[in-house]
Amino acid sequence: MRGVVMHAPGDVRVEDVEEPQILKPTDAIIRLSATCICGSDLWPYRGADHLSGPLHMGHEYAGIVEEIGAGVSLIRPGQFVVGSFFASDNTCEICRAGYHTSCIHREVLGTSGAAQAERMRVPLADGTLVATPDAPSDVLIPSYLAASDVLGTGWFGAVAAEAGPGKTVAVVGDGAVGLLAVLAAKQLGAERIIAMSRHQPRQQLALEFGATDIVAERGDEGVAKIKDLTDGLGAHSVVEAVGTQESMMQAIRSTRPGGHVGFVGVLHGVELRGDDIFMTHVHLHGGPAPVRRFLPQLMDLIRNRTIDPGRVFDLALPLDQAAEGYRAMDERRAIKVLLRP
Amino acid sequence: MRGVVMHAPGDVRVEDVEEPQILKPTDAIIRLSATCICGSDLWPYRGADHLSGPLHMGHEYAGIVEEIGAGVSLIRPGQFVVGSFFASDNTCEICRAGYHTSCIHREVLGTSGAAQAERMRVPLADGTLVATPDAPSDVLIPSYLAASDVLGTGWFGAVAAEAGPGKTVAVVGDGAVGLLAVLAAKQLGAERIIAMSRHQPRQQLALEFGATDIVAERGDEGVAKIKDLTDGLGAHSVVEAVGTQESMMQAIRSTRPGGHVGFVGVLHGVELRGDDIFMTHVHLHGGPAPVRRFLPQLMDLIRNRTIDPGRVFDLALPLDQAAEGYRAMDERRAIKVLLRP
Repeated sequence: MRGVVMHAPGDVRVEDVEEPQILKPTDAIIRLSATCICGSDLWPYRGADHLSGPLHMGHEYAGIVEEIGAGVSLIRPGQFVVGSFFASDNTCEICRAGYHTSCIHREVLGTSGAAQAERMRVPLADGTLVATPDAPSDVLIPSYLAASDVLGTGWFGAVAAEAGPGKTVAVVGDGAVGLLAVLAAKQLGAERIIAMSRHQPRQQLALEFGATDIVAERGDEGVAKIKDLTDGLGAHSVVEAVGTQESMMQAIRSTRPGGHVGFVGVLHGVELRGDDIFMTHVHLHGGPAPVRRFLPQLMDLIRNRTIDPGRVFDLALPLDQAAEGYRAMDERRAIKVLLRP
Repeated sequence: MRGVVMHAPGDVRVEDVEEPQILKPTDAIIRLSATCICGSDLWPYRGADHLSGPLHMGHEYAGIVEEIGAGVSLIRPGQFVVGSFFASDNTCEICRAGYHTSCIHREVLGTSGAAQAERMRVPLADGTLVATPDAPSDVLIPSYLAASDVLGTGWFGAVAAEAGPGKTVAVVGDGAVGLLAVLAAKQLGAERIIAMSRHQPRQQLALEFGATDIVAERGDEGVAKIKDLTDGLGAHSVVEAVGTQESMMQAIRSTRPGGHVGFVGVLHGVELRGDDIFMTHVHLHGGPAPVRRFLPQLMDLIRNRTIDPGRVFDLALPLDQAAEGYRAMDERRAIKVLLRP
């Protein structure tokens, strides 16, 4: 079958790769209906993450179950399913508390679970996958695919920031996760939603997803603008969806005392000094989003067409043109690229 | 009048100092019934905080109102009152959200508000001070004094760590704040309370305040012991009541994914790397405790003798012997020293 392999920074190829197989009784094999390129795939693409060898890419997936191991009982061949980037059992005490990405039996997807391919292996299928009650309309597939990571991650950011009625929410970062954190804040009932973005097409999508204000400034100026909009106090809730020192500090400093920062950008080289977190009185919570916690609810909202998160895909390409998809995202010509196997 | 002045690390003297005066219409002057030495007073005493000149000491106070400014309407001369280490208006949006120590009109007590003295000035008296309904029995004065800082701080640590029914709470630090975080966790209904202490008299007091387990180990061994006691997962709630890099990391690493760290030890030289907080999935919240939020509730619990936080004072001295009080705390011969003006 065909699959995407990164050989070096900037060097992405679509190659013949090994077919995935059932390795454990709890595995399932799915045929991808659609997959996509993640902002986090750009870290190794740009050389910011070390590549120790050729890397089979992709961790966002939606598709049809083709085969299950002998120990799988809840998921059946033929179902349309969505899963998340870590496999989880959905039964341990940590999963029951809603932290599936820290499941005590957590598994990374690995090479045979690389999603930028025609098929993939999903471990712990009963715990990891959520099926729709019937075959979805093709038009909904991008939205289901978004639920696999960027929607679930933006949603977790908004939940971690305690977005809700009466709250002013600010979102740092205008990638797919940031834009979907805007959508999440809107669904969670936030009163005012400030999107921090300097790119017109992304500002536009943020407004369509529910942003009430746009702040184009960054750093000190961005913080000052947020304070101006909030009686000098800062936002109640701030979602950090980038992961750099600058963006994390912008998020903390834009939050009022007693407010909440939800950080979901994978932190790269961030160091917080005691003073940054002690005197500010903010709440900090985040990490790899436990998307599985939210999947049933998010898939219902997609199915009944309450939300349309698939709109973050502004470029769709055949899997064989994955290299062009990486270039488009790297050059910020595309917000997020969907790949059709 | 007499007051305590620190001239250099290790050099604490009781001297004739200027009488406090009403400087603003919102001020009150109180005569101290009792005051005390704080663990945080040991930072400059040990040279860990820079002293730029002679420092009038003390920020914990309970006493009788002697005089009020023309703008004070809720507090009256003759009342027995308790206040906290920052003055706050108790009316701004930040105070109403419970973060009085970040009040937009916050004032530090300053030289005329130094509490290790016979009298002190309290700014924003209506917002800062809470009065008892009647003159308290002498036997309760140490407990009211504890409410001024160490009880309120330990309580905030337990609240920030979301201690409550069904939770396992661990407390890092066996000073007065840590011990009173144990008391707070018990009052908040925690199921299991693990005190981390290697000092027998402090272990004993922790047990009397409600600890169910004692862990004497620190660092990696301490974390391993907490994991052993919690099915390998870590505690739901951890209170950090020290403020060093080691204690903060011990707190974070003792917390299960999705759990809460409440940090109230004044952070000294602490740096958290992104990895420390991203993959751990903990909630972090803390800072200077908004004691004023809790004072009415805590003073009621003291008045009806539900709690006896004054037991942390294991040495009481006349104000004139303050230097011996500092030595006793520095050498850990005393948990906390009460001074009688």
